[in-house]
Amino acid sequence: MEESRILMKLSCADRRGIVAATSAFLSDEKYTIVDAQQYDDLGSGQFFMRIEFQADGDRPTDDLPALKDRFEAVASKFDMWWSIRQRAVRPRVMLMASRQDHCLRDLVYRWRIGELPMEITAIVSNYPRETYLGADFSGIPFHYLPVTPATKPDQEAQVLQLVRETKTDLVVLARYMQILSENFTEQLSGRCINIHHSFLPGFKGAKPYHQAHERGVKLIGATSHFVTSDLDEGPIIEQDVLRISHRDTPEDLVRKGRDIERQVLARALLAWLEDRVILNGRTTVVFG
Amino acid sequence: MEESRILMKLSCADRRGIVAATSAFLSDEKYTIVDAQQYDDLGSGQFFMRIEFQADGDRPTDDLPALKDRFEAVASKFDMWWSIRQRAVRPRVMLMASRQDHCLRDLVYRWRIGELPMEITAIVSNYPRETYLGADFSGIPFHYLPVTPATKPDQEAQVLQLVRETKTDLVVLARYMQILSENFTEQLSGRCINIHHSFLPGFKGAKPYHQAHERGVKLIGATSHFVTSDLDEGPIIEQDVLRISHRDTPEDLVRKGRDIERQVLARALLAWLEDRVILNGRTTVVFG
Amino acid sequence: MEESRILMKLSCADRRGIVAATSAFLSDEKYTIVDAQQYDDLGSGQFFMRIEFQADGDRPTDDLPALKDRFEAVASKFDMWWSIRQRAVRPRVMLMASRQDHCLRDLVYRWRIGELPMEITAIVSNYPRETYLGADFSGIPFHYLPVTPATKPDQEAQVLQLVRETKTDLVVLARYMQILSENFTEQLSGRCINIHHSFLPGFKGAKPYHQAHERGVKLIGATSHFVTSDLDEGPIIEQDVLRISHRDTPEDLVRKGRDIERQVLARALLAWLEDRVILNGRTTVVFG
Amino acid sequence: MEESRILMKLSCADRRGIVAATSAFLSDEKYTIVDAQQYDDLGSGQFFMRIEFQADGDRPTDDLPALKDRFEAVASKFDMWWSIRQRAVRPRVMLMASRQDHCLRDLVYRWRIGELPMEITAIVSNYPRETYLGADFSGIPFHYLPVTPATKPDQEAQVLQLVRETKTDLVVLARYMQILSENFTEQLSGRCINIHHSFLPGFKGAKPYHQAHERGVKLIGATSHFVTSDLDEGPIIEQDVLRISHRDTPEDLVRKGRDIERQVLARALLAWLEDRVILNGRTTVVFG
Repeated sequence: MEESRILMKLSCADRRGIVAATSAFLSDEKYTIVDAQQYDDLGSGQFFMRIEFQADGDRPTDDLPALKDRFEAVASKFDMWWSIRQRAVRPRVMLMASRQDHCLRDLVYRWRIGELPMEITAIVSNYPRETYLGADFSGIPFHYLPVTPATKPDQEAQVLQLVRETKTDLVVLARYMQILSENFTEQLSGRCINIHHSFLPGFKGAKPYHQAHERGVKLIGATSHFVTSDLDEGPIIEQDVLRISHRDTPEDLVRKGRDIERQVLARALLAWLEDRVILNGRTTVVFG
Repeated sequence: MEESRILMKLSCADRRGIVAATSAFLSDEKYTIVDAQQYDDLGSGQFFMRIEFQADGDRPTDDLPALKDRFEAVASKFDMWWSIRQRAVRPRVMLMASRQDHCLRDLVYRWRIGELPMEITAIVSNYPRETYLGADFSGIPFHYLPVTPATKPDQEAQVLQLVRETKTDLVVLARYMQILSENFTEQLSGRCINIHHSFLPGFKGAKPYHQAHERGVKLIGATSHFVTSDLDEGPIIEQDVLRISHRDTPEDLVRKGRDIERQVLARALLAWLEDRVILNGRTTVVFG
Repeated sequence: MEESRILMKLSCADRRGIVAATSAFLSDEKYTIVDAQQYDDLGSGQFFMRIEFQADGDRPTDDLPALKDRFEAVASKFDMWWSIRQRAVRPRVMLMASRQDHCLRDLVYRWRIGELPMEITAIVSNYPRETYLGADFSGIPFHYLPVTPATKPDQEAQVLQLVRETKTDLVVLARYMQILSENFTEQLSGRCINIHHSFLPGFKGAKPYHQAHERGVKLIGATSHFVTSDLDEGPIIEQDVLRISHRDTPEDLVRKGRDIERQVLARALLAWLEDRVILNGRTTVVFG
Repeated sequence: MEESRILMKLSCADRRGIVAATSAFLSDEKYTIVDAQQYDDLGSGQFFMRIEFQADGDRPTDDLPALKDRFEAVASKFDMWWSIRQRAVRPRVMLMASRQDHCLRDLVYRWRIGELPMEITAIVSNYPRETYLGADFSGIPFHYLPVTPATKPDQEAQVLQLVRETKTDLVVLARYMQILSENFTEQLSGRCINIHHSFLPGFKGAKPYHQAHERGVKLIGATSHFVTSDLDEGPIIEQDVLRISHRDTPEDLVRKGRDIERQVLARALLAWLEDRVILNGRTTVVFG
């Protein structure tokens, strides 16, 4: 039943009548609102809304392009940024990884059992397929794109080409351990999320678990964020932490951290797939 | 600024047009919706909404009774249960306690520093005022109403009389350690919340920390719920837990538990004071 | 380096001199204590200790049987229950599962990447191998042992036979959804752990997530415990919880719950594998 | 009964026989070890131990100075840093605060109900007594020591003088919002703990909740640490976090943060009071 729903996201400068105009439009079009959430950023004066709606019982198949055309009148009145899509049409997601594969395998497993409503367009790795012994990537194109400092521009161009060819909507860096060029991150602006293995903004950069151990923190964390040209500074989507103690070695932190990395990335991705995430400057709105 | 807002809660059987009719009404009345949350219980077919709205800039003082009269037309069309109130008009809350006073003092402190937007109509205890040495109850009427099995009907009648006289909207049992009669709980149905010192439904009844210790659980919890005639079975508003270990004695659990009890009760009460809590049969809708 | 360590667990009635006698024994035997934890249950008067120790630098390979023989003198003086084993000798673990495989796959993955120091003696399922499409069970004997009410005694006998033949030390019920006979649980007493998908003692029995949804709790949990003949009543090893809201359907709870089930079971198993878990009547001592 | 216990902390370079020598000493002296925890920092080669012990039943009052004299032989053999004290002799603690008093009041309340086994030697504030309306400071000397940039050296000298006169063992900065001079922090090195209202190392310095809001983190935290001349860089004793969302304003974070600040500081202080905290370079060992 959820499959018949339509998802709408919108954002605009706040003023009276946005909710009224939008909900009246949907009611006139004979849709029932199943879920709606809104947020009014009093600091910036920006308004955000997510609506999940569905056609009343006796309706023929939705003509979404026509609906979007008609909504344009409402949207332009409020100068909205907006999107409308059928829930059943699954976003197209590319997964990128390096040698460590706990996040990659976890996402593929969750996808197989129906937890993550997406199409996987490709797995891209700078390690060869045989790195992932026993992993079940059947039905998913695997691209081995090795990279060296010298070949980075070419390799990134290949990745971007693949994004275009596969009509990928979102690139997920599932512990892809390469620093990306500014050109690359700009091309994928707003369409690329990463998992960083620390509770940002603490412990940016390399070997965060070793940094955490040295600093003697009592909790470690993981952060999923949009990728920007400014490393580990992109808008945060989801974070979580785990209690540790002085007994934990850096290796223990690496081991324990895998669990939060997997979960935080999966939660961030699911929120994105359900159109619950909207960028708000340096931060995000994530509807619950 | 938040003080000028108006809070609306409503619930009715779900059908098309509820959001549209309500938001159109508010827009026509020249109100801006600042926050709105809704929930559609697909199991029961019941719809719930909370709206926070405010008058546009150049408006005179709101005439709330007239607004409510006009909203009646919308409400009756959908057969709504609803309420509208000014945020600035603070709910009237009575606090009941027994010998242990950590929740009682905590609520009074949070109220004094402005965390809890309420009027405290009275503190009622079955222990005398001197039990709470050094507690700052200045400005709050204190009623010592001792109770024995024989005098319970009379004592409860006195409490109910006080609730009426003080126009109390909500009674908070802040570790009030008396079993209440069915008559009492029925009279206060939907208007009385409790803090139970366990993660319900585990460890109902007496001495939950001792039960938890004996069972060897690895987390202890606290639960704030509406009071019903069925002890510890009322609709849950908020819960939280805390990690413990085999080293913790029952006394350690009592000590550690005080922290979650205080927090869980304060969070449940704050949600109620902000009109975020709506009953839904045996459960609650708590807008975040 | 950790591989060269020796693990000792012991328990006895508390009295003066246990630590002194044990540590003097180890020092005389030219071992260094790397980690030691103890717990004195003041309620029952029982004493528990776990020691991790290693040979001083210039020692030949340990003769563990001889060491154990010599320790017997200390142990008998205090009437100890005790065990000594080389960390490098990995416990032999059998995994049992049914149709849902998130815990099973998770344990196998953690084992492959070195998180769980064990030998997997077998995977036993009441579903055929093809249930687990794409799962990498290479190198692990898989036994399909279907069960009906009529064949349960036979099937359980087959499992027990397999436990003996494979010299299995621990049976892990990784969402094995069959009620076990009293005979079976008694035979595996202290050697079988389960993951129950609720925060016990709440929601024992079938469909705990549906029970949790109906009761309207604000957190769901998972519990790993030793299996006893009394269903869901065995000594608890590890528990954890996750926040939910009124928006979550029973299906959402099932989905979200998978994450805590996997983690709680993996943590409980790891603690057991590192000899950190000791039974204490109806509860457990779990050294951190 | 706990009151009759003796607490020992020690630290030295790791080598064989420390546990054996110490426990044999205690056994020979006719003490029973009630709790012992140790930690071997493999990185630095440093060994840490905490022992809680008590005299066997028929013993006269302990002569602690004599015991310490005799232990000196063991300690010097291993070149130990160590301390032995009676649990019943409560450490002497000075509380320092500024205008915000939630931590200060919380500590005083916990002390009154017996949660914090300490003597409060003084409350020192740069705000006058009347700032804390209704607070019950009866029986605790209150010192109003205002401070300006010009008078800071004098004021700090007064505080240090008070520390000496009152034989204060530990100074607790319970939201004392003044930057301390290097001289001051050096004088109190290892004897002064602070609560910082962020999850360090994130958001050092001023207005951390505003920084957290601007960065858009999804959890906020609090950190209790030893004070060093390097602001917010001292060894961490305890930390905790709380989930927030995009809806939370900086003011909401300030409000919600008070709960974790109170708890984290109270937990850190309790650990210190029970001799569970030992410095280990830039970090701490905190026995659970």
